Order: sequence, then C-alpha cells, then structure tokens
Amino acid sequence: MITAETTVFESLESNVRGYCRSWPTLFTTAKGAWLKDEEGRDFLDFFAGAGALNYGHNNDLLKKPLLDYIASDGITHGLDMSTAAKRELLVTIRDTLLAPRGLDYKVQFPGPTGANAVEAALKLARKITGRKTILSFTNAFHGMTLGALSVTGNAAKRAGAGVPLVHATPMPYDGYFDNTTADFQWMERVLDDTSSGFDRPAAVIVETVQGEGGVNLARPEWLRHLAELCSARGILLIVDDVQMGCGRTGPFFSFETAGITPDIVTLSKSIGGYGLPMALVLFKPEHDQWNPGEHNGTFRGNNPAFVTATAALRHYWSDDALERSTLANGDVVAAELGKLAERFPGLSTRGRGMVHGLVFDDPGQAGKVGQAAFERGLLVETSGSMDEVVKLLPPLTLTGDELTEGLARLGAAVDNVMGG
Amino acid sequence: MITAETTVFESLESNVRGYCRSWPTLFTTAKGAWLKDEEGRDFLDFFAGAGALNYGHNNDLLKKPLLDYIASDGITHGLDMSTAAKRELLVTIRDTLLAPRGLDYKVQFPGPTGANAVEAALKLARKITGRKTILSFTNAFHGMTLGALSVTGNAAKRAGAGVPLVHATPMPYDGYFDNTTADFQWMERVLDDTSSGFDRPAAVIVETVQGEGGVNLARPEWLRHLAELCSARGILLIVDDVQMGCGRTGPFFSFETAGITPDIVTLSKSIGGYGLPMALVLFKPEHDQWNPGEHNGTFRGNNPAFVTATAALRHYWSDDALERSTLANGDVVAAELGKLAERFPGLSTRGRGMVHGLVFDDPGQAGKVGQAAFERGLLVETSGSMDEVVKLLPPLTLTGDELTEGLARLGAAVDNVMGG
Amino acid sequence: MITAETTVFESLESNVRGYCRSWPTLFTTAKGAWLKDEEGRDFLDFFAGAGALNYGHNNDLLKKPLLDYIASDGITHGLDMSTAAKRELLVTIRDTLLAPRGLDYKVQFPGPTGANAVEAALKLARKITGRKTILSFTNAFHGMTLGALSVTGNAAKRAGAGVPLVHATPMPYDGYFDNTTADFQWMERVLDDTSSGFDRPAAVIVETVQGEGGVNLARPEWLRHLAELCSARGILLIVDDVQMGCGRTGPFFSFETAGITPDIVTLSKSIGGYGLPMALVLFKPEHDQWNPGEHNGTFRGNNPAFVTATAALRHYWSDDALERSTLANGDVVAAELGKLAERFPGLSTRGRGMVHGLVFDDPGQAGKVGQAAFERGLLVETSGSMDEVVKLLPPLTLTGDELTEGLARLGAAVDNVMGG
Amino acid sequence: MITAETTVFESLESNVRGYCRSWPTLFTTAKGAWLKDEEGRDFLDFFAGAGALNYGHNNDLLKKPLLDYIASDGITHGLDMSTAAKRELLVTIRDTLLAPRGLDYKVQFPGPTGANAVEAALKLARKITGRKTILSFTNAFHGMTLGALSVTGNAAKRAGAGVPLVHATPMPYDGYFDNTTADFQWMERVLDDTSSGFDRPAAVIVETVQGEGGVNLARPEWLRHLAELCSARGILLIVDDVQMGCGRTGPFFSFETAGITPDIVTLSKSIGGYGLPMALVLFKPEHDQWNPGEHNGTFRGNNPAFVTATAALRHYWSDDALERSTLANGDVVAAELGKLAERFPGLSTRGRGMVHGLVFDDPGQAGKVGQAAFERGLLVETSGSMDEVVKLLPPLTLTGDELTEGLARLGAAVDNVMGG
Repeated sequence: MITAETTVFESLESNVRGYCRSWPTLFTTAKGAWLKDEEGRDFLDFFAGAGALNYGHNNDLLKKPLLDYIASDGITHGLDMSTAAKRELLVTIRDTLLAPRGLDYKVQFPGPTGANAVEAALKLARKITGRKTILSFTNAFHGMTLGALSVTGNAAKRAGAGVPLVHATPMPYDGYFDNTTADFQWMERVLDDTSSGFDRPAAVIVETVQGEGGVNLARPEWLRHLAELCSARGILLIVDDVQMGCGRTGPFFSFETAGITPDIVTLSKSIGGYGLPMALVLFKPEHDQWNPGEHNGTFRGNNPAFVTATAALRHYWSDDALERSTLANGDVVAAELGKLAERFPGLSTRGRGMVHGLVFDDPGQAGKVGQAAFERGLLVETSGSMDEVVKLLPPLTLTGDELTEGLARLGAAVDNVMGG
Repeated sequence: MITAETTVFESLESNVRGYCRSWPTLFTTAKGAWLKDEEGRDFLDFFAGAGALNYGHNNDLLKKPLLDYIASDGITHGLDMSTAAKRELLVTIRDTLLAPRGLDYKVQFPGPTGANAVEAALKLARKITGRKTILSFTNAFHGMTLGALSVTGNAAKRAGAGVPLVHATPMPYDGYFDNTTADFQWMERVLDDTSSGFDRPAAVIVETVQGEGGVNLARPEWLRHLAELCSARGILLIVDDVQMGCGRTGPFFSFETAGITPDIVTLSKSIGGYGLPMALVLFKPEHDQWNPGEHNGTFRGNNPAFVTATAALRHYWSDDALERSTLANGDVVAAELGKLAERFPGLSTRGRGMVHGLVFDDPGQAGKVGQAAFERGLLVETSGSMDEVVKLLPPLTLTGDELTEGLARLGAAVDNVMGG
Repeated sequence: MITAETTVFESLESNVRGYCRSWPTLFTTAKGAWLKDEEGRDFLDFFAGAGALNYGHNNDLLKKPLLDYIASDGITHGLDMSTAAKRELLVTIRDTLLAPRGLDYKVQFPGPTGANAVEAALKLARKITGRKTILSFTNAFHGMTLGALSVTGNAAKRAGAGVPLVHATPMPYDGYFDNTTADFQWMERVLDDTSSGFDRPAAVIVETVQGEGGVNLARPEWLRHLAELCSARGILLIVDDVQMGCGRTGPFFSFETAGITPDIVTLSKSIGGYGLPMALVLFKPEHDQWNPGEHNGTFRGNNPAFVTATAALRHYWSDDALERSTLANGDVVAAELGKLAERFPGLSTRGRGMVHGLVFDDPGQAGKVGQAAFERGLLVETSGSMDEVVKLLPPLTLTGDELTEGLARLGAAVDNVMGG
Repeated sequence: MITAETTVFESLESNVRGYCRSWPTLFTTAKGAWLKDEEGRDFLDFFAGAGALNYGHNNDLLKKPLLDYIASDGITHGLDMSTAAKRELLVTIRDTLLAPRGLDYKVQFPGPTGANAVEAALKLARKITGRKTILSFTNAFHGMTLGALSVTGNAAKRAGAGVPLVHATPMPYDGYFDNTTADFQWMERVLDDTSSGFDRPAAVIVETVQGEGGVNLARPEWLRHLAELCSARGILLIVDDVQMGCGRTGPFFSFETAGITPDIVTLSKSIGGYGLPMALVLFKPEHDQWNPGEHNGTFRGNNPAFVTATAALRHYWSDDALERSTLANGDVVAAELGKLAERFPGLSTRGRGMVHGLVFDDPGQAGKVGQAAFERGLLVETSGSMDEVVKLLPPLTLTGDELTEGLARLGAAVDNVMGG
C-alpha cells in the first residue's frame, strides 16, 4: 500500500534523487536476486546495487554472522583501532585473496565509499611520485567527490563540481576509435615527446570494464600494453576495481585475466559482501608512503561490514566455484543477448563475466526498454554517454532459473519496444 | 590474549593507520561508554568514535530495531530508491527535527561520510551562486577528500593532497587574536573592498565548535554576526555540524543556541545513531538546484543506518531530556576540568555541552596525558594544531557514575604527568 | 585639426581603449613635462606615462644618444645576444646602481614590460623554493598577464582572467585597518599556525607605495618588519619597484629608505629612461637558479632602450641631485595639497617623494576633478579601489615653475568641483 | 676587441641568458641581413630576431621616419591615448591590411610582446564564451608568461612555471602521427562525446607553422578542417601569427593560403617593422567584448614602433612584390636544402615561404651544424623537441646574393659535420 506519506519523498527529499524516478515504487524487503515492494510485487534485480550486491540481497551466509556480531555487541564503529573483526578480515584478505594470487599488497581502509578509495589512491600516487597529473580514460567513472570527479568523463556530472576540474587528462580507452588506430598511439606519443605539452603524470587510473561508461571492455592485451607502458616510464598504474572487482567479471580481481599487477587497486561496492559501506585501497609495499593518519575518515572502521566481508571472502573465494559459475552464466547471458541482437536491427551487445550491455543505436529505446522491464518486474539500468546501453549486473549468486527468467523478461521488454 | 596473528596489523595494514598506535591493544566488544579488549580490560570511552557515538556503543534502544530489520530482510542497500526505511526516516526528520524547530530544509542523502556531505555542500553552493571561492576558518577540519581538504587547516593533512588546494581561503575564527580585534574586521573589510584581491565567495563554511582544531568555541553573537554578514552580501552560510550536531553541544543542531538558520547544513557521524555510516545535507528549499543524479554515491542508501537513525531521533529527540542532561553533564565536566586547571599551572580549559578541551601550554604534556589515561582505562584523543589539547567527547548517554569515573581517571592521568 | 579620420579610433580600435576616453583629444608631440595636441593646446603632464617618464618626455640628454645609436645602425633587436649597448648598460648598472648601494644582485632581462618582470620573479621564487603560493597585499597592482593578475587586487581586472586566479593570497597592507591592529598580526599568525589553512608561501610580493591602489604608503618600519618576518621563515621578499623605483619616491630604489635588501626586485616603466619598453629583474646571486633560456622573450634585448637607460643612469644617478630635488619638490607638493585638504572638507592627502594622492571622501568628485584638470590643461589620473584618489606622478625633472603651475591648475580644478 | 669588461655578462647577467652562449661574441652594429661584431667580423643573419626582423636590421626605409619622428619630439610613450602616430597606423592597418583582404577585425594594442598578445587573446576568448579550457597543439610555442606557457608544449619551459599549468589540453598537430590517422580523429571524437572527460573549450589556439616546435607545417586543408570544426561547435579559433605572420610564409597573414578567417589573431615580432617591441590582437567585431581598460599595459602605446610599423606596411604591403619574392626565395631555399637532404642520409627538410627546417635524425648533429655555421659567419638556430632541426628564418628582404651566400655557408657547415 502506497500511503499518502509516500509524498514525503517529493516534499522533503532533494531533487537530486534519481533511481526512485526510474522505479516509481516503494521497496520494503529483499532476498537474493529479488526485491519486494509495498504492494507485494516482486522484482528481479539485474542491477544489484550498481554492483554492490554481487552476493545478492541479504545473503543468509553473511546475514547470520552479521546478526551474531551485532547481537554479541562486537565493536560497531572502530575508526582504525585494532579490533577482532578487523584482524579476521586482514588475515582472510591475506590468506584468501592475496597469497593465492601471489599478490604482496598492503591494505588501507579509507572512508567506506568507492569515491574515497579513489581519492586516497590519487593522493598516494601524487605523494609517491611528486607529480600532479593523472591520466584517465574517455567515458571513465570514478566518483563524485572533487578528486574522483576530475577523472570522471560525464559532462553533466563534471559540471556539478562548480570549479574547473584540473590535473587530469583523458586518454582514449580501448576501442575508442573502433580499432582503426594502434593501441596507445596517442598516449605513448605524447608521453615520449618532451614538447607534447603533457606534463609527466603521476599515475594512470583505469577500469577494466567501464560500467557507467556503457559496458566498454578493455582487452587483456590492451591492459598488458598499458601496464608495460606505465612501468617503462615510472608511471603508477591504478586499477579502479570498485565495480568490476569482487568477481563481477569472473575472477576476484578483474585484472587477473590480463595477468597484470597494478601498483594500486581500489575496491568498494561488493567488498563488504552484504551491501554495507566499505572500501579498500591495496598497493605494493614499496608504495606505502603514507604517514600515520595522513588520510583518514570517521567510518573507515565499519566493523559490521568487516564481518560480512570476511564471511563473503571465505564462502565465495576459498575455491573457484563462483568464478566458474560467473563465467558459465556469462556465456548464457551473452548467448541470449546475442539472439536479441540478431533479431533486432539497431541492437548490439557486449560484455564479460556477469556484466553485459545491450546497445541501442537509438538511445531513446534503451530508456524505454528499462521502463518496459520495470513494468515486467525486472530492474535494469541504462548507462553510456547517451544512456544508450541497457546494463545488466545481476547478482553473481542468482540461480539458473532466475537468470533464465530475467533474460526472458528483458527479451519481452525489448520486444515490446522494438518489435513490430 | 594477543595472538601472534595480531602482527597482521603491522605486516599487512598500511602505515596510514593511526589510532591503533595510540591505543595499542585489540578491542573486541563495546557497550555504552565502555570498550573491552581481548585481554578483558575495560576502557571508558571519552572519544566516542570521534563524535560518531553520541548515544554510546551498541545502544540497545537502537540495536533492537536494527536486528529486527536485518532479520526481516529489510532492504540493506537501496541507492536512492524509495524504501520503507527511508520513508520512516524522512517523516521522522520532518516531524522530530525540522518542524519543531521551524526549519524548512530539503534533505539530501550524499555518500555516507562527513567528507561526502561537505563535498556535496560545496558543489551545491558553487552551483547556486556561480562563484568558485569558499571562505573557511583557521584551524577548521572538514574532511580528507580533495574538496573537503581544501577547506581544512591542518598543514600535514593538506600536504597529503599532492596538488595545490585552491578556491578556498581561511578567515580568522572567533578568538583567533584573543579578542584584541573587532569580530570579522578582516573578513568584512576584504569582502567590501573591491580591490582587496579576494574574489566574491560562493559560501562560508564554519564549525560552531572546532573539535579537531582544538575545541575552539564560536560565541553565539559571533555566529549571528557571521550569518548577518553572509546574508547581507548574498554569500551562502554552510554550518558543518558533522561533529558538533546531533546534540553534542546540547541542542540537536549546534547552531540553535545562536538562533541562526544556515543555508546549508551537513550532518554525519552520530546521525546514524549506532555508528553506521550515514550522512545528510540539509538546505533551504530555494537552494535545491540539483539536477536528478547530479551528485550520487553507491552507499547513499545505507538503510540499516536509516533504521537506527530513525530510532535515535524518536528516542532522544522527541523531548528535551537529552539536551538538558547534556548541558547538566557539561557543567560537571567544566567544573572538574576547571579544578584541574586551577591546580596545575600551564593548564586551561574550554568547552560547551559535552565537548571539552584541556589545553596544555606545553603540547608534549597533552600526549603524555593521553597515554597515561589509556594506562588508566580511559580513551581520550588530542587535537589542536600542535596536539596540545586533550579533547573530551564522551557519549551523551553515559551515566553520572561513568562521568565521575572518567573525570577521575583523567585527573589521575594529569596528576601523573604534571604533578610533583 | 581633428580630421574625420580621427573616428578611426572609434571604428577600428577595440573597446578596451581607456585613456583616450579620459583625455579626448589627439596628441602629437611632447617635451619634458608637456604634451601638445593636434589643435596646438599644451598640457602639463602630471601622469608621466603612469610613471614611465620620470625624466620627462623626449629628454634631450637621452634623445641625443638614442638618435646617434639609431643613426649609426647599432643593434636594434638583440634577443639576449651580447651587444655593445648591453655591455654598457650592465657596467653602468653595476657601477652606478648596485656597487654604490652595496647590492650584489644578478640582472635578468625579461620581456620588456613590468608584467613580464613580475611573471619572471614569481616563476623564479617558486622554482627556488619549490612552493606554490605567493602572498600579495590588498589593493596591489602587478600587471595583467595571468601570473601577475593573480597577485593584483582589482576585482574588475581580475574578472578579465576568465579563469580562477589561484596560488596567491592577499594580506593586509600597511594601514589597512587604520593602524588599529598590530602590524602583521594576521600574517604572522597564519604563517606560524600549522593549522591555519595557509600553505607555506614561496614569496611575498609588495609595492612600497601602491600607486594604482590609491597611493597607499608602507612605512619604513613596516617594510623592515616584513623583510624580517620573511627572512626568519625562509620566504622570499619581492619588491615590485616597477612604478615606485627609478627615483619616484626619492632614492633610486624605493626600498632604500627602509634599509632593506629584497631577494628579488622588478623594474620597468622608467628604467629605459625615454619611455621605451624595457624591464629588469634583479636578485641575489644565490637565487640565480635559472637554466639557460628557461624564461625568455623576443624583445628582451631592446637595445635602443639599453642606450637610453644607460644615459639616464649616468646623467641622473651618478650623484644625489635628482634624489634631493625629488624630495624637495615632494615637500612642495605635500604642502600645497595640504592646503587644499584644509580648505575643503572631505579631502585628504598622502604621498612620498613625487607620488601624491588627493583623496576624496566622495569618489565621484575625484573623477570630476580629473576632468576639470584636463579642461585646464593638466593631465592627472584617478586610482584607488573606488577611483577616489587623484594621483600625481609628475616627471621628476620638471622645473619649479612647472610644478607651481601644475599645482595651481589642480587647485583650480578642485575649486571648480568642490568650491561653493 | 673583446675587452676584459666583456666578463660583465658572466659576472652580472643571470644564468638565464641563452643566445650569447650559442654565438659567443659581442655584436655592435647591423644592417639588412648582416650583423657585425666587435672584432669586425660580419655574420649573415638567418635567424632575424626569431622572426622579428622580417625587413632586416635597421632597414633604411623605416629608419628614416623613425629618426624623423624622434627628432621632431613625436610622442614616444603614449599608453592608449590617441596620438597622431597611432592614427596613422590604424588607418594604414585598415587600408593596407584589412580592407584589401575583406577582413573586418577590431584592433587591440596589448602590451608590446607576443606573450602579452596571447594572454589577451586567451582572456578574451574565455570572457566571450564563459568557458575555461583552451585546446592547444603538440609542440606549440606561445610564450613564457603563465597563461601563454599553459598552451606551450616544451616540458623544460613548462617546468619553469613552478605551478601546475591548467585549463589547457594539447591536441595532435597536423602530421603528428605521420598521417596514419584521419585528421582531427581524436579532437572531434572527444568534443562530440559528452562523456569523454573533456570540458567544452573556449577556444583553439594554433600556429600555421610551428617554428619553435621544429618547423612543423599545417596543411591548408587541415586548417580549413580545423576552422570548420570550431565554427560548427561554437569554439573560437585563435591563430597565433606572432612568428609566421608579417609575410614570413608569403602572404601577410599566414592563414590566408588556407582561406580561413580566424576569430582572433595575434601579431608581434615583425609587426613593428624595425625590431621595436609591439603587438596587436585582431578579432571579429562581435568579439569586442572588452570593458575599457580591462586589459592594459604600460607600453601598449610604443609610438616609435607605430611609426616603423606604418612605414613597413606601406612600403611592403601596398602591393604583392614582397609576397612574390618570398615565395620565389622560398623555392630557392627548398631546392638547395633538398639537395643537401639528398646528399646526406639522416637529413630531411621541410618548410614554406621563408621558414625552413633542416631535420637531423641525429639531434646532436643539428647543434654541431649551428656551431659550424657560426664559425662560417652564419647565424642559424635549432628548434624542435630535441633541438633536432636547424631552422632558417632569413630576413624576407635579403638579396639573391645573400641568400645564395647563406645557403652556401650552411651547406659548408653541414658538409663539415656530416661529410666524410
């Protein structure tokens, strides 16, 4: 039942609110891949908190330790004090994430958001190198605080800064010219030309798949080339794995497929496991040049999230089952979207693991498909510079039936919009 | 028992960690004003999560609805979708916070940290006015992301930016010249002199008490003068109530005493009630010039925090009991600290409500007192530009006995350091 | 005869033109303190090219060597090649300017304008110190290029930049609070407070008298205090002597009276002697950290100006005659303006050497006096943040009769505007 | 005779001096294409004041009116007062330069240097559009003041700024990828992609031939494409014709060949004709949005330069004789350099009109050739990002014999360095 009080959103909440406009209902509970609204309707969630819910809503494997922890009065708010929950998490990160992958990273707990992790990474890279400029990529998204926004591509979001965004320059992302030019032709040229007008950068920040940018994929060989060109020139490589990490593309870190080891890695969204705010910055030990307290944040010790993060790492990353199922499910998605793209002219598809995009030549149709999907009980978001891409980010843990059902609803929505 | 694994903090966590150095033990559980460590020792917490735990650790009044909410699979991660928990919170904010105080604010949910609320406030002020510069104050602290850092005073933290911090200029805070000059002499002069070299600012951002800056107090008349000078010149007034709001100084909003109505208010830390990450930006309706989605953040819908925030507002702010006890307890603290200051030369004290500072002429003694307090089972932090102030931020909900005990331990620590 | 073609100024020259509006006639020739217009009217010039004509128009002592040099095909355009004219100038600078004053400066030839000298000085100070920020003063004027504009006070001129002007912060100039506060109270406080929010500056740039700012005078003891506070903190002191140098205040360098030795000094305007474009940057030898060619400029070797500069230095600065006459004439001006200020309420006066201001409480009257003076054959300019000051900058070489006549015309203009 | 006093350059002049190191002698007089040193040696000048002496040294056609003007006490220093000399110049600009070419430009007199003209142009473009960013090109050179330096490519010169250079982004100049990519592929793509991360620019600034950058040539069709893409997107086009204007490439304006009409044009160097400091900014009338005095400069009214500028325009630009001889001489240079390039592997050549480059695969050889040329009485400069290009900028007015002689000396120098 939508009560009159629901008007409180219109009357009290700022005009800045967004998703509640795309999905005009009031949600009450959620489980796994499903959200329920106040009227009792169920929605399959192929958005998953913009990638923050890779293990689904209110996953019981994480919920139980969370409830136990809260019930037992474990530390809730811990700043960066040493706590039992943090120790468990650190040991688990080391033993489950880092050691098996041969990674020798130090772990920083910045404020609990992706933007904060990016801000910390940029600050650290500048401090280490003594340089100012960051190279980002076309169509990148890294966050909305001033530093993160400076490496973000979207013009409307950039305009929100109210001040010029400086010390960052975009470079062409993989495929930006439809592969008509050699990889990194521009970037290598200007870095090696001492009169190019480009100041030597501190770091390059890159997403292996640009989710907000329209599900643009960087090929593994492109990422390797990037890592090599950075390494050869003393430029730090930052992989922003906030959305594509935690298994979204298959392996835990999205860069594993490329076989590269970034200097700095940012994680957030699904790292907490349960949708609770948490973020990490990982970096090679020689880059740990922070002074104590040089970057801080009141909520950097969100211990309930440490508990669910630990549980998620242990349950899902002690073996390769999730990675394999993600890749298998990804094949299903790719196949089904491929069929849609074959059926409808003006429609194409791209993706990797469990992030996929349905790309419409006519951007307006993407929005209509999102709306038609909502009407059919499926939540999907659009992305891309013209909102021309319907982006699929289902929970990695959804069942085969749920995947089938979601894709069917999507197909129906596309059919409704594009079909004769 | 401190196990060998505790070395994981040294071996794995970044050098940036801070509080774990001041308080070298491993904390496990907490309740009210008390933290317990792995060895079973109890610590009275007069730091309260840097002001994020005004209602104490794991407050049962909030814990129960939190456990119920999680147990019932209420939405955990909601972006800015409309949810039942958010509706409850909005209605409660309106009915408990705003309407009784005659405030007509719009409510924005930025990312769940104080820094993010500050970043959103600065962006909005610049967007509204079309101007770039923000006036801040000497010894201010507003956060560690690039925008928030630009209005923060501490040189060591500013250096962490790695780029010049621009578009912000500090002005003298109340008492900066020991009241030897007229209030706002410099600020009014440069604003009204078209050749002063100061560009017309978008906004002024101010804390009513500077916690990190050393418990510096702005007098109500100074704040009124500030509000008037801003209003007369079309400059927006932002009160950053992240640390001093939520009842820390007595009333819910720290600026109520002064009788002013800021254009924009930031809240975080204790607004979630239970120590869970959450933040708000409040602003006058005419300032709601955001476009949908123009500022966003993955964790802006941390619904479990909405549940505890709602409970905290209802329990503690439906009447004036907490405000009265805070003021009464504050008098106790002031009296006891006053006695200490009388006993020891080179020691003075200042404070308001339940934020107090013990100011040492010899900065080194403040750190020693903090260490001696820890050894006596009391957690206190130092602040100020030379870490010369022992800052007291006890939970507002502590008992009279706890207050007495804490002050006794503090007195013993001071005696240990300064006594014959 | 004003021909129809005079409309070419309106039809072809940009709207940016300025002085031709204040003095709406067409000038043809000039000599000493006099300008002649096309209709044969003579004007006494108490503006002297904004201080670029300290030795008067077309001074025969300089004109002869200039004509000889040009006639003999001496190098006209020399970049920074070694030329005979440059050698003569360097030797003269050393023997006439530097050695007698015990100054051990290196000499840089930047582009031939004051703004360029300031740009070079700021760049050098930043390079030497590795710091970014420059402290300037309220009501300062240093030029219109981006770097020079950032340390200039006038809001309308600053707005012309089109980008935010950063890395510079104004401090209160001497007398900014009518001497109600201690000198440098604000500046010393923020420099020594590590949480003030002010980044450690590379340099302070100061005019000893602010000509454009309204003939504001810095006392010698204030300048000494400034030099000491800079020296004690490793901050470079730049004296911009573009307008006040070359004898305008009496001694060649305006800072001599204060007995200070700036780290860097900029000279332009009258340094060329004849009104030809030329500029110098002087700095202590230990500051000569330029790489060859690191700052350059096509016209940095304007050799005809070197010839007239050499002649001016030899003729006017081999003894103290000019300095003494400037001080004596300055006394005459001060006395006459003092009488005017006594006669008319709302009028006051200030000045030093041969720079004086007549300050009107009602700014509009200053402009009217300038207009009335023009009608009486006297050229004077207004300055100050509200154009409230009639500024007198007569040639230093004018005769006693010319001085008397000019002051009489000024008195008549004031009488016309303010008299009953 | 080099006297002991010549050491004054080493002892007194700043280390920043440059050309005096390449050409270690002391020059005394000059005429036409020749410089004479103190020992009586004659040097053929194929550098011509970096393009400031297109009409040769001390050209008698200009020298006579200059001497007459000075002798008659014409206004020397005129700020932006209306003077007879300025009127003559404006009329001549209109009748000789603008009207015959169908150009309807307004004329601004900025400070008398190219850097100042560029600073004024950038300020005006930002004011007109309300945007901040300027697009420049790889290997560009526009000057050394802060604004001009931000659009300059050379890393060593940029580093001299001491602050980050912002609000400017380089784009690939014509031929930057050896014509393997479509013209403006990158530039058009990022301008039209609203998520590229590039803010909409105020203007593009371009040289039609990059002299300092290594004699890089923009093809006419590339310039037309550039003009069209700017026009289609409301971006202003600034042609910096400081070095390539005034006939260097044949026609007066270097962009005439391309048939484009820039929004803003900067002129300096040879515009004064005689090597005296002077600069102009030309812009379409609708762009004349300056307020009076919004950009100024003490030496913007260097009237002696107005006299020589007027004479130069009348003598050399009333017909097309100079343009034709420049093109004819350019063919001679191209042919001779072509022969050299054929003779020596590792040597190539490029140029247009009377600006040509001899490009060495081994950059070190370019410097050696410059030295060998000096020893043979020929002055040439190197340019390019690795100083790999010997740049020829002879006076346009040199005789056929002088051209032959200079090319012979150059050939001998190349032979000396590269020959067996």
